[in-house]
Amino acid sequence: MTSRSIITLLTDFGHQDPYVAAMKGVILSLNPEAVLVDLTHAVPPQDILAGAFLLGEAAPYFPPGTIHLAVVDPGVGTDRRGLAAWGGGQFWVGPDNGLFSPLFQEGEETIVVSLESPEYFRHPVSATFHGRDILAPVAAHLSRGVPVDDFGPRITDPVVLTRPQPFFTLERVQGEIIYLDHFGNLVSNIRGRDLWAWLGGKTPVITLGPLTIRGLARTYENLPPGEFLALVGSHGYVEVARVRGHAGYDLKVGQGTPLTITKT
Amino acid sequence: MTSRSIITLLTDFGHQDPYVAAMKGVILSLNPEAVLVDLTHAVPPQDILAGAFLLGEAAPYFPPGTIHLAVVDPGVGTDRRGLAAWGGGQFWVGPDNGLFSPLFQEGEETIVVSLESPEYFRHPVSATFHGRDILAPVAAHLSRGVPVDDFGPRITDPVVLTRPQPFFTLERVQGEIIYLDHFGNLVSNIRGRDLWAWLGGKTPVITLGPLTIRGLARTYENLPPGEFLALVGSHGYVEVARVRGHAGYDLKVGQGTPLTITKT
Amino acid sequence: MTSRSIITLLTDFGHQDPYVAAMKGVILSLNPEAVLVDLTHAVPPQDILAGAFLLGEAAPYFPPGTIHLAVVDPGVGTDRRGLAAWGGGQFWVGPDNGLFSPLFQEGEETIVVSLESPEYFRHPVSATFHGRDILAPVAAHLSRGVPVDDFGPRITDPVVLTRPQPFFTLERVQGEIIYLDHFGNLVSNIRGRDLWAWLGGKTPVITLGPLTIRGLARTYENLPPGEFLALVGSHGYVEVARVRGHAGYDLKVGQGTPLTITKT
Repeated sequence: MTSRSIITLLTDFGHQDPYVAAMKGVILSLNPEAVLVDLTHAVPPQDILAGAFLLGEAAPYFPPGTIHLAVVDPGVGTDRRGLAAWGGGQFWVGPDNGLFSPLFQEGEETIVVSLESPEYFRHPVSATFHGRDILAPVAAHLSRGVPVDDFGPRITDPVVLTRPQPFFTLERVQGEIIYLDHFGNLVSNIRGRDLWAWLGGKTPVITLGPLTIRGLARTYENLPPGEFLALVGSHGYVEVARVRGHAGYDLKVGQGTPLTITKT
Repeated sequence: MTSRSIITLLTDFGHQDPYVAAMKGVILSLNPEAVLVDLTHAVPPQDILAGAFLLGEAAPYFPPGTIHLAVVDPGVGTDRRGLAAWGGGQFWVGPDNGLFSPLFQEGEETIVVSLESPEYFRHPVSATFHGRDILAPVAAHLSRGVPVDDFGPRITDPVVLTRPQPFFTLERVQGEIIYLDHFGNLVSNIRGRDLWAWLGGKTPVITLGPLTIRGLARTYENLPPGEFLALVGSHGYVEVARVRGHAGYDLKVGQGTPLTITKT
Repeated sequence: MTSRSIITLLTDFGHQDPYVAAMKGVILSLNPEAVLVDLTHAVPPQDILAGAFLLGEAAPYFPPGTIHLAVVDPGVGTDRRGLAAWGGGQFWVGPDNGLFSPLFQEGEETIVVSLESPEYFRHPVSATFHGRDILAPVAAHLSRGVPVDDFGPRITDPVVLTRPQPFFTLERVQGEIIYLDHFGNLVSNIRGRDLWAWLGGKTPVITLGPLTIRGLARTYENLPPGEFLALVGSHGYVEVARVRGHAGYDLKVGQGTPLTITKT
């Protein structure tokens, strides 16, 4: 039996090498009806936290039953486990290194197994490319209806990496930049809904590097070209942008830079 | 009812961020049978004219009934309209900012509506990502057979941006470079068919920056490596190329550079 | 009759230009059921050997009957032939310039025809974009069941480019770097299985530029961050990597650099 399941792929393999295509070939060999969708292959090399962020931002928009295959795997070939999981109405396959942290932090019910059933692997299994030899085949078998529990024993201690959390006091919110997007928008770890609750109707004053911004804009176009602004982006976090510019390059700041908010 | 419609995507979102994947997830949630094809996601950020050029060069090769979803949208969240259109045997969905200028300039019959039926949107609609919350859902509903007129009232004044046009006199054609491609080929706004009509059998002399080229080549390989040549490219425009080189980088010229043709 | 055949695409067209999308549109116009998979579009421009390497590394993972459409074509429009081939259980379409060398070097039975049946082309055929006007239509017709022999006469002399081969003596193996991947791993032309046979149980000593490495690691993580290591990668070749680093940039070496192995 084959079925037209959606399998998304997120890796740090980039766009030149043959690795993503090899994984797709392995999947289509096992399930020719699979629908393959690239989430992104431009996760910064070996940056598990960035991969987890991007996966968490894109996966929720896919239909129930979607299989998310994610490979950012600096520990490939060591004793780190591989895992298959069910949670949030979707399936997840990848290394057990924190890549699925957003899933496990939501408090949702999940089923997680350690990949230990070699009959679902591609043989011989290379020591350096489990994406092709273990993870892609498991995703393909999942898409054909193999139950999660068939891939190995359940585990209850998957690796969870915690993103730096913002710190709220009466006077200020201390956060930091967690992502710089393609447009140069600097995304912080401060959720809009938490900020609004904290503001209680007052006006926020945002400080980032040399920059001080009063108030939140609603869109990227509220000010003349060249002006910096802060807003709550489509992902729900406070971000700093520059109208028709690239805030990240222009301010020379990026991931890890502190962003402070006071109110007035 | 679902159907295996083709939906193409053209954006300036790049390849790292989760935004393209979010749009694809939204579409597949509404129509799991949709066939998604990337036109390009490397439109220079917020460059509507470049997006219009790339869309105009790729869209005609797709089958009748294809839905082209294009998002280069610096004005997102302001009062710029969104539109859905039918024209040239295909469907078009995107912001009303000139991105579809080639369609409206061809003099073909079109039906254009302003997107004002919120029952086809994804809610809540963010102020900064209409691609995900308005345009992708509309494209998905179109692909399921919802008529264009259901998405809002007809309009007759979509935004049209005019590309700089070449200027023909008896002695010379004055054009300019409108696109630099991946191979370094400098594409001008002078159509081959217009040039041939103007030449009337004479030999063209092309001037671009420090370069003077006599005559048009037929292919990129007609001369020794390192030589510059002019030809009418596969898109029908006069372009300047360098054999086994990168004309754009080597000449340090690009979009907007004047290109002049005389005849002898 | 249409069928859900897989057609892969490998080009040097990059990700910005409309050329890949034009080819996809042409294919889907002829066979709306075709399943399109990108192998890569980031082959270095006009680098046929790199294209052949990437094709050879990715194609074997696809199911029997897959059609591989490859366009790295500096000689487009000259008298170089186009070809369609059957071999290794799969189909191959592209310019006859060496791009399919791995296929022809394996000693497998192949059927190769020169593309000379214009009824399968898109007209008018441009002189500069056979990918769109000849090769994509041929791949699409193949996917609909047209036999290879219908596209033109059989040929027995397709162009074969030979990659530099390693040189084995009693004391040393002299190879070279043939590929630098996205992670900075420097892939040589020395096959692991040949090396192991030559070592006969002894320990290899690998020399690359300023670097000397004793022994082969099993994974990329066997040493502390910053250390260089050698291993046999997932493609079966000896490669040099740097733990959590980019060996290529850090050593300032790349394609063509000699890599020498002795034993001790």
